[in-house]
Amino acid sequence: MEQKTISQAIIKRLPRYYRYLGELRAQGIERISSNDFSKLMGVTASQIRQDLNNFGGFGQQGYGYNVKNLYTEIGKILGIDKVHNIIVIGAGNFGSALAGYSDFERRGFRIKALFDRDKNKVGKEINGIKVYPMEELRQFIKDNNIEIVTLTIPKTAAIEVAKSIADTGIKGIWNFAHTDLALPDSIAVENVHLSESLMRLSYNIVNPDKRGKRYGI
Amino acid sequence: MEQKTISQAIIKRLPRYYRYLGELRAQGIERISSNDFSKLMGVTASQIRQDLNNFGGFGQQGYGYNVKNLYTEIGKILGIDKVHNIIVIGAGNFGSALAGYSDFERRGFRIKALFDRDKNKVGKEINGIKVYPMEELRQFIKDNNIEIVTLTIPKTAAIEVAKSIADTGIKGIWNFAHTDLALPDSIAVENVHLSESLMRLSYNIVNPDKRGKRYGI
Repeated sequence: MEQKTISQAIIKRLPRYYRYLGELRAQGIERISSNDFSKLMGVTASQIRQDLNNFGGFGQQGYGYNVKNLYTEIGKILGIDKVHNIIVIGAGNFGSALAGYSDFERRGFRIKALFDRDKNKVGKEINGIKVYPMEELRQFIKDNNIEIVTLTIPKTAAIEVAKSIADTGIKGIWNFAHTDLALPDSIAVENVHLSESLMRLSYNIVNPDKRGKRYGI
Repeated sequence: MEQKTISQAIIKRLPRYYRYLGELRAQGIERISSNDFSKLMGVTASQIRQDLNNFGGFGQQGYGYNVKNLYTEIGKILGIDKVHNIIVIGAGNFGSALAGYSDFERRGFRIKALFDRDKNKVGKEINGIKVYPMEELRQFIKDNNIEIVTLTIPKTAAIEVAKSIADTGIKGIWNFAHTDLALPDSIAVENVHLSESLMRLSYNIVNPDKRGKRYGI
């Protein structure tokens, strides 16, 4: 299959398909018609078909979708059939919360360490994850095959840290700092801007008539 | 101006415009050409023009954008010129982190209370915010003009709580539980599904050639 660019809108929907298929699987449901799946997801059957066609299809005429197979295949597309080593920079409230979130581990995301510049935090364990000093960051990334670096630090520090680790071989940055990061194309960036999320909610509250659909953002 | 539905893609970009305008303003910049603004944002000038035209324009031919005016106007569109009272359900790591996030307060989002069913947490203060028992939830919402309810509890509990407060007059739910919520149309829902965000990052890491653009998700 030729390599083509997949829109971020589709990439946004894939984890949601994955979640619903996981729930169906947990309920022991083996297959689902294209129509029932579309009703469950709140999107049209043709949208689902189009989305999945980007990856080679998977539905069978007259059968619908095989829940377990599709779940496994979407998991592969999302790369969560592999283990990803993660570290979290910033052992504040937010970084500590992420370190303690067991759901990530279950999906193959292993949080290996927290990093902080506060000497009072270094050496301690937070939610079972050890806190390291910033001076050891580059070496730790190299020694532990770290793929994803999570930034839960203020924006100026985030820009600085991102720059300082751009050449260490990391593959992605999960960025909670309220800024865009300029990085080489080899590094994927996923932004989680909570203030902006709250502003979108505010928009949708004050503009109920201009709200549009609620899913998929 | 007639009421028309605005796509979620535009609503997603507005807070980002707002952020950049805020930074320009902080730097004392009074106006910016449509071209320079487009370069700064990493989107085309025509995209910006189209987005802002949904709200009546704002640019002036040959002048560009007045930074302070546009900042103020987008703030109004986003509804953050008003105060929004928020509560957070779930005083765990994550809810506590949100309660302590001073950036929200600065934008007019006032976190008024935490709620938890753990009797050991009730009555305590976390990051300056008092923890209340779940039994007082409905009354608290009504007495304190609460507009937004943040859910940082597991999905079964989230579904139950959302249902139990749907008729209290709340305007929005900021949902961190990993589930979709079925609610009346009068309540806006903004989902923050962190596991899904991490899966998108994973996708973009394992499919570097199919990644597409990095902004705007």
